[in-house]
Amino acid sequence: MTTYEETCYSTVKDAIESRHSIRKFSDSPIPQETLREILDLVRLSPSAWNLQPWQFHVVTDTDLKMRLQEAAYGQQQVTSAAAVIMVASDMENISANLMATVHPGLPPERKEEEVANLSGFFNNMSVEERGQWGLTQTNIALGFLLLAIQGAGFASVPMLGFDQEKVKEILGLPNHIRFAAMVPIGLAAAEGYPHHRFDLDKIATFH
Amino acid sequence: MTTYEETCYSTVKDAIESRHSIRKFSDSPIPQETLREILDLVRLSPSAWNLQPWQFHVVTDTDLKMRLQEAAYGQQQVTSAAAVIMVASDMENISANLMATVHPGLPPERKEEEVANLSGFFNNMSVEERGQWGLTQTNIALGFLLLAIQGAGFASVPMLGFDQEKVKEILGLPNHIRFAAMVPIGLAAAEGYPHHRFDLDKIATFH
Repeated sequence: MTTYEETCYSTVKDAIESRHSIRKFSDSPIPQETLREILDLVRLSPSAWNLQPWQFHVVTDTDLKMRLQEAAYGQQQVTSAAAVIMVASDMENISANLMATVHPGLPPERKEEEVANLSGFFNNMSVEERGQWGLTQTNIALGFLLLAIQGAGFASVPMLGFDQEKVKEILGLPNHIRFAAMVPIGLAAAEGYPHHRFDLDKIATFH
Repeated sequence: MTTYEETCYSTVKDAIESRHSIRKFSDSPIPQETLREILDLVRLSPSAWNLQPWQFHVVTDTDLKMRLQEAAYGQQQVTSAAAVIMVASDMENISANLMATVHPGLPPERKEEEVANLSGFFNNMSVEERGQWGLTQTNIALGFLLLAIQGAGFASVPMLGFDQEKVKEILGLPNHIRFAAMVPIGLAAAEGYPHHRFDLDKIATFH
């Protein structure tokens, strides 16, 4: 029997400062326990009304990674990575099962009221609008995911340059699914570019 | 002369696990240096094509906080917090100044090519569509912000329940601005609710 040793995480500051997009990874696989541990943290991301529209498809199978690489116009980082996490949003599933998202601590009549309010809000939207709404919330979890990966000692590269329809086909996902990113992850085998970001005074105003 | 002591950050794991929405804060103010330090980290968030559409409006002024509270339908956490960070997205500013976002390490002709590609992409969109696109990217930075705040020892509550038009009026912001969240921040003076999240097996699939 082997015992699984828990990952030691770096600080939030170190994770943010050291994170760069990495496109070349070492051959080492990532144990599924580690991937599960990372996603178990990401699971705790906040979302409006706690709707948690995110779904994570974790691909370690070599053939599937090759097909994802094709859908990503041949970008090498997809097969170089030990795992590829497709960060998806499924608002149709969520809006059809709102009761599951309501906090169990609420009294029954408050739960029903909450579900009625949310139903009213989402029934006024098209599938496309609900999809877009879910996608914004899923990007909060994408932020958590990138920091959890980095904090656990791995590198990643969030990508949007891929054919969303092809990826749905590869993974057998319904048409309404929206992707926030394709995220190859592994141990870094190359340096990233230095950060190029706006100065703080350009993006922050104090009132 | 006082020297400013740098904040000691907790681990990514601790920050994620301990973060709960807090709606009651202590009276202690947060030094502007600390708020700047937190936002200086959030500045490093990734975004598609590195466009960084986010803008942070940090409100510590008592009168302004009261007006924000009114715009948030009277919710008490807005004035209870030492500071309120309005997380905004300004894609009109970004799409009019694309050259500023391109990595300085690229050769001049590649920079021009990149700007031409991006211009083509965004010129095909309406102001509303660009706004929505920027908002999804800004939510990655919202994820980073919530963890940076928590990692630095403060508490927060990301809110979407406010009148966006009223807040633009209060802060004197143009109409095309979109808000990802209103985020009251301070030292916690009450416990949050326990996390209510889907099980890992409901949101993660291994291929």
